[in-house]
Amino acid sequence: MAALPITAEPAALPSLQLSSKYAGLHVDAARTNATLQAACVWGSTPDGGMNRLTCNDDDKSVRDWFISETKKYGCHHKVDEMGNIFAIRPGQNNSLPPIGLGSHLDTQPTGGKYDGILGVVCGIEVLQVLHANNVTTFAPVAVVNWTNEEGARFPPAMLCSGVWGGEFTVAYAQGRQDLEGNTLGEELKRIGYMGTTPASYDANPLLAHFEVHIEQGPILDVARKPVGIVRGVQSIRWYNVEIQGREAHTGTTPMDRRSDALLGAAKMILETNRIVTETEVAPRGGRATIAVINSSPQSINTIAGKVSLGLDIRAPADSDVELIEQQCREAFEIISYKHGLTMTFDNFWNSPALAFDPTMVSCVRQAAAEVGCSIEITSGAGHDSVYTSRKVPTAMVFVRCRDGVSHHPAEFSREEDCAAGAEALLGAYLRYDDYIRRATSTAKI
Amino acid sequence: MAALPITAEPAALPSLQLSSKYAGLHVDAARTNATLQAACVWGSTPDGGMNRLTCNDDDKSVRDWFISETKKYGCHHKVDEMGNIFAIRPGQNNSLPPIGLGSHLDTQPTGGKYDGILGVVCGIEVLQVLHANNVTTFAPVAVVNWTNEEGARFPPAMLCSGVWGGEFTVAYAQGRQDLEGNTLGEELKRIGYMGTTPASYDANPLLAHFEVHIEQGPILDVARKPVGIVRGVQSIRWYNVEIQGREAHTGTTPMDRRSDALLGAAKMILETNRIVTETEVAPRGGRATIAVINSSPQSINTIAGKVSLGLDIRAPADSDVELIEQQCREAFEIISYKHGLTMTFDNFWNSPALAFDPTMVSCVRQAAAEVGCSIEITSGAGHDSVYTSRKVPTAMVFVRCRDGVSHHPAEFSREEDCAAGAEALLGAYLRYDDYIRRATSTAKI
Repeated sequence: MAALPITAEPAALPSLQLSSKYAGLHVDAARTNATLQAACVWGSTPDGGMNRLTCNDDDKSVRDWFISETKKYGCHHKVDEMGNIFAIRPGQNNSLPPIGLGSHLDTQPTGGKYDGILGVVCGIEVLQVLHANNVTTFAPVAVVNWTNEEGARFPPAMLCSGVWGGEFTVAYAQGRQDLEGNTLGEELKRIGYMGTTPASYDANPLLAHFEVHIEQGPILDVARKPVGIVRGVQSIRWYNVEIQGREAHTGTTPMDRRSDALLGAAKMILETNRIVTETEVAPRGGRATIAVINSSPQSINTIAGKVSLGLDIRAPADSDVELIEQQCREAFEIISYKHGLTMTFDNFWNSPALAFDPTMVSCVRQAAAEVGCSIEITSGAGHDSVYTSRKVPTAMVFVRCRDGVSHHPAEFSREEDCAAGAEALLGAYLRYDDYIRRATSTAKI
Repeated sequence: MAALPITAEPAALPSLQLSSKYAGLHVDAARTNATLQAACVWGSTPDGGMNRLTCNDDDKSVRDWFISETKKYGCHHKVDEMGNIFAIRPGQNNSLPPIGLGSHLDTQPTGGKYDGILGVVCGIEVLQVLHANNVTTFAPVAVVNWTNEEGARFPPAMLCSGVWGGEFTVAYAQGRQDLEGNTLGEELKRIGYMGTTPASYDANPLLAHFEVHIEQGPILDVARKPVGIVRGVQSIRWYNVEIQGREAHTGTTPMDRRSDALLGAAKMILETNRIVTETEVAPRGGRATIAVINSSPQSINTIAGKVSLGLDIRAPADSDVELIEQQCREAFEIISYKHGLTMTFDNFWNSPALAFDPTMVSCVRQAAAEVGCSIEITSGAGHDSVYTSRKVPTAMVFVRCRDGVSHHPAEFSREEDCAAGAEALLGAYLRYDDYIRRATSTAKI
């Protein structure tokens, strides 16, 4: 049983008009908010934020809550070897894999109540709408809690959707350690969430994957729009730049006889910023940031002999990331030459640009239009949907968050914006269920 | 018994012609080099450098050697409460305090064979010349090994000349700890070098202090001159700059909606460099360096929210240091305003400009002329002479070092340059002894 093939071209899309069967179904804003508050009982912090690291006792408690809550709306559950939980509500055609509505319940150590949690809560709200209206969908639906999306306790991020999507092996992921040396596998066993279902698309498929997530950026907040349509995920490349100069005494070395690695690094930081703000890539959404710097020997009277930089380049198109990389590399080489420095420029991680499935995105687009929204965004950050898209049609809905702030206790989305996100998810998901119904019956002819 | 007053004006200087009694005395280059090699037996490293931290077993060994070596040339010894060793060779008038020829035998952990060691070795060479020629000087002479000049094990630098000169108390200095929590006092006792002589000018005065030291900068090497005349020490101020921006996701935050503390810091580094290379202070020898940087949260995909910088400003004149400070502060405030950053600019240490005693400097000038050198340098670095100058007439001789490199195993001064340094010290010291003889006899009249 395989997922339907990803549709190729938006131009060739079928009608995605919502069937009469699903007309009149809407989410309940107050209920959605109540579910969100319930999902934040365990691990909340006095400053209004959350601290719920993967597999701690609060994570166990919220997982128990998630299972008992979704049982109320007719779900049975699968827990896989990575602790990913699939709360499955049957449909009319249970030989199909379920359509997934997923995100994550773990948080950063100083995180907020919306990143990840809102996506799971919107999935539960969809279940509640179906349950309250006594609707049986065509395909089954699964609300999914992906384990360790943040990677805050067990790096890297998006670990367990990554296992499901084939990026990481189970052995690698279960062996990831926290700072105390505990492995994720041991901790999953400790809290009773190492399941027996194989953690893979092949053994435990979904038909598709929708995800609601806060934007974690300011575009919607500036535009005063509750939701946005996510077209895909930016191309991302990470680099480590090592700059070697010559240590020398700050007091005795004339200014014109220095090979100052930190002065060179400062020029590189400015050039990086100039390239993405003043050249052709700027209007195309190119971004480049140096956020990590380390220098040695950390002595106020010894000119820095060695500086390392972490460089993050992103753009909607892979070609623009390549262009920014090339411009940075050339600029850095010129700076190094002028200052008598040596430099290495090492690309240690790539994530190519990802375009979500056109049919899925169209479903989101039509559903978003019904809540008055049409802004289309390329996600700047990674999400579980990056890895589900490796296997199944995937799309995302972004929800406005105040000032674009995330990974911080001040992270906040208004109740009406959260409800708009749930409404867009409901509309998009039901359109896709309709689409599957039609595609399946056509296939039968 | 107090030191002679510091003379006010070079114009009023007495003749410093070397008396016939001292004519024909010269150092021996090979002997000076042999002494240097002997002084580097303990703590030498395979890369040609030195690792002799204060009060380690190698430091005890070289102290034992220093005492036994200087005994050969007629010295008796005083060891004070800070382990400073005074190897005193009597003169004709032993009611006068000795003229000091001092420097230090401790090194950086990855240091060289010349920084400090050469100064003590040149003092020993002077003793050898006097001894070999059976000369009894007018005043007694003391070769001094000051403890913990580097401050590498027990910060701060120049600690024990600082106690002698009244900058630090004995209790403070003896209580300084290394990284393992051992105090300098405990370690001095352990190696048998906590003496009973009070560590102070008042209780154990010198009449004056000469010091030979490698330049630790490139001026003499560029000019191809073996020695230089040190006029004094630059004005130095150290600052801590804290920059606060706003942490945000590198992938989701548009370039024009950032308060990037590291981008602001990079602009400050460039402005600092511009101020001392392109404004009026440049030809007057102003220097400013940011050599220390730290950023948080050290995550490649989170814009730096906080950056701290260490700023070192120097110039021969205090007024230029003030001017550079003012220009940096104004530039930093403008950068902070433009980027939405907040900044604090904290001056945590000052060392005002120091002009060495004109009579002493004239002695060095005349002696340097006899080895063909006339370059005058304001020292960019601190030395034990900074603190001796608080109490007694002080002057220094700089010796050329290859490429200006210091605090590194590659630190190197040629044998003939080291000998020229010793010759300049001998000539300057003997001129001052003559001067004291004449001044004392005049005073008696």
